[in-house]
Amino acid sequence: MPGSTIITLLTDFGLEDAFVGIMKGVILSINPEARLVDLTHAVPPQQILAGALVLRSAARAFPSGTIHVAVVDPGVGSARRPILVETGGGFLVGPDNGVLAPAATALGRRTVRLIDNATFFRRPVSHTFHGRDIFAPVAAHLSRGIAPESFGPSLDAMVELALPTVQRTPGAIAGEILYTDHFGNLVTNIEAEAIASFSAERVSVSIGDTCVAGLVTAYTAVAEGQALAIVGSWGMVEVAVRNGDAAKMFAAGPGTRVTVVVELRKT
Amino acid sequence: MPGSTIITLLTDFGLEDAFVGIMKGVILSINPEARLVDLTHAVPPQQILAGALVLRSAARAFPSGTIHVAVVDPGVGSARRPILVETGGGFLVGPDNGVLAPAATALGRRTVRLIDNATFFRRPVSHTFHGRDIFAPVAAHLSRGIAPESFGPSLDAMVELALPTVQRTPGAIAGEILYTDHFGNLVTNIEAEAIASFSAERVSVSIGDTCVAGLVTAYTAVAEGQALAIVGSWGMVEVAVRNGDAAKMFAAGPGTRVTVVVELRKT
Amino acid sequence: MPGSTIITLLTDFGLEDAFVGIMKGVILSINPEARLVDLTHAVPPQQILAGALVLRSAARAFPSGTIHVAVVDPGVGSARRPILVETGGGFLVGPDNGVLAPAATALGRRTVRLIDNATFFRRPVSHTFHGRDIFAPVAAHLSRGIAPESFGPSLDAMVELALPTVQRTPGAIAGEILYTDHFGNLVTNIEAEAIASFSAERVSVSIGDTCVAGLVTAYTAVAEGQALAIVGSWGMVEVAVRNGDAAKMFAAGPGTRVTVVVELRKT
Repeated sequence: MPGSTIITLLTDFGLEDAFVGIMKGVILSINPEARLVDLTHAVPPQQILAGALVLRSAARAFPSGTIHVAVVDPGVGSARRPILVETGGGFLVGPDNGVLAPAATALGRRTVRLIDNATFFRRPVSHTFHGRDIFAPVAAHLSRGIAPESFGPSLDAMVELALPTVQRTPGAIAGEILYTDHFGNLVTNIEAEAIASFSAERVSVSIGDTCVAGLVTAYTAVAEGQALAIVGSWGMVEVAVRNGDAAKMFAAGPGTRVTVVVELRKT
Repeated sequence: MPGSTIITLLTDFGLEDAFVGIMKGVILSINPEARLVDLTHAVPPQQILAGALVLRSAARAFPSGTIHVAVVDPGVGSARRPILVETGGGFLVGPDNGVLAPAATALGRRTVRLIDNATFFRRPVSHTFHGRDIFAPVAAHLSRGIAPESFGPSLDAMVELALPTVQRTPGAIAGEILYTDHFGNLVTNIEAEAIASFSAERVSVSIGDTCVAGLVTAYTAVAEGQALAIVGSWGMVEVAVRNGDAAKMFAAGPGTRVTVVVELRKT
Repeated sequence: MPGSTIITLLTDFGLEDAFVGIMKGVILSINPEARLVDLTHAVPPQQILAGALVLRSAARAFPSGTIHVAVVDPGVGSARRPILVETGGGFLVGPDNGVLAPAATALGRRTVRLIDNATFFRRPVSHTFHGRDIFAPVAAHLSRGIAPESFGPSLDAMVELALPTVQRTPGAIAGEILYTDHFGNLVTNIEAEAIASFSAERVSVSIGDTCVAGLVTAYTAVAEGQALAIVGSWGMVEVAVRNGDAAKMFAAGPGTRVTVVVELRKT
């Protein structure tokens, strides 16, 4: 599968500085035909987990062959490796610190490569901005049809992202909040598949010690301002408030405990 | 008029999550030649009026045939209808909750269609993210040349947006603030046409109980830090502060009363 | 050098209103083939210096022929001139208030032109939004191959940006903070060249009255949460905190004094 000319960008650089513009300029200088798509540049600074989850969620929607560049890189300038991941659904370019791992799995991993061919770098390579010096130029060259193996040798493994695991007991799953979105919806680590065998009408969801409405299929199933649990657009259980902000209502965020329980029928 | 390959996006999704990226991926998966333009993703959550005003203002600037997708959708998952509006200036795609109505009028309405042909949807259609499942794919198919009538039957009416109306008396118009922009400029619901017959030199503008300088034609007509009233880029009377923030100075925002009065000549 | 179809946009308009979308619509109405790239729209309102520094930093990364439109324009509606600058690296379009000057120097100035040919303006030209009425349409026409001289006559000079100057004494340079970036890194006006003759191991950097670690080449040279000084991606000395926020740690920002001193060897 050759790389397409669509290159997505995900960073924690924010949009107020020149960083993102510089990366775009570097890419267009190498491939003026590249088609740039911003995923987000508002990953909280250095938050690899948040970046990894957003990347996984977005990358799945793109056409096969898309090149995804993700730069959330607290270890820039250290020994952490730059990598290129070939998958069934596209290419991932970024630091080997876990930010690419969930997307790599979701898209179907094939080969992980160390990026070490300096021919494709912007030189001199700084110790502070590999987005400009390594990741952007590699993505641009890949989008021009340079073969993946040209960038470096394959690796046996990449750094995995340690996602907090859920705890299962018969009829219950205990997880936690991973991410608070723009609307204050609280995304948990409990996947839809994990509760597929539960009968939705009998499910009860708790956040901290508070019980919210059971699992519903639309925000409009509850009244305005009421809390609910729903399988959201990430394919995970979310706690939300209809036309409100669940993070504020429950003073909750990453790490807050969430439990899904199948209620016993009263006899 | 066929749809062009230019697709604009306006949402209240913010830029920190994957939502916008997912919509872009869905569009590019259907039409890799689509040319995506972000209008804004910073509409305040669920604020249909703000979204509608920004859309109206921006859509008028685009070439004929442009496809505008607007997703401010507090009723997602309820019975509110997805619609496609054909206008003299382009296409509008989004929920039938009023967000498209002012732009439809500004561009010259022709036909309003119910979007009900699931052939063009991403399936399964969720109850939480019609931007991804309905609006993005419909826009993408439209940009590939699919005829508007393929998406669904025409409707007799669409949901209109109830804008607060101004009150007119001889020589005076009373309106209110609709929107506070990035600079703190306060946009009213008083249109330039409504005061066209007033002599600008004799006009007095009040916000709440405070009188500001009369209507001027440039910010530089007053000193730095002074308040002024001006017909702004929306074609409406705005209260502003030269190189300052009127929303802060007057502690004003949507709903604050604004009056334009023609002063009587003293005899 | 003809203009390319790549047009970058830098403004202080923010992303929540219609301003940026309108400029994009105007450009695409004139040249549907234009390729729009956002540099940033988050320049602090009316802050010409910040806009100028970001533009200089980003513009250098783009291919030759790129058209850069920069609108930070507190004097819109006054007598300040609209200009077009031809450089060795591309074109600059915007108000003649200094915002273009550092980029013009960095790209290699050739000709500065007054933009006065109203044939290319959107009419009527407002007193409040030259981004829409003058700068966007001029950039769009330029991207279609209109010759630069068509837009107006050459000027002898443009408004320069008064950057605070550094003070040099033997073995020391005193400068100040110019800009705080998204990460809280504090960018000074001390250029890498100015300290090139200093031995990095013997350099000591102070911010206000606090001494930080000497000049390092990577954030990872210090422990998490420790301050450091580094030549950053702007080519200037920055004070940063590894995986932290230097602006907060030192309660510092534009204007704060920074000194680089070569320590005397103890004998």
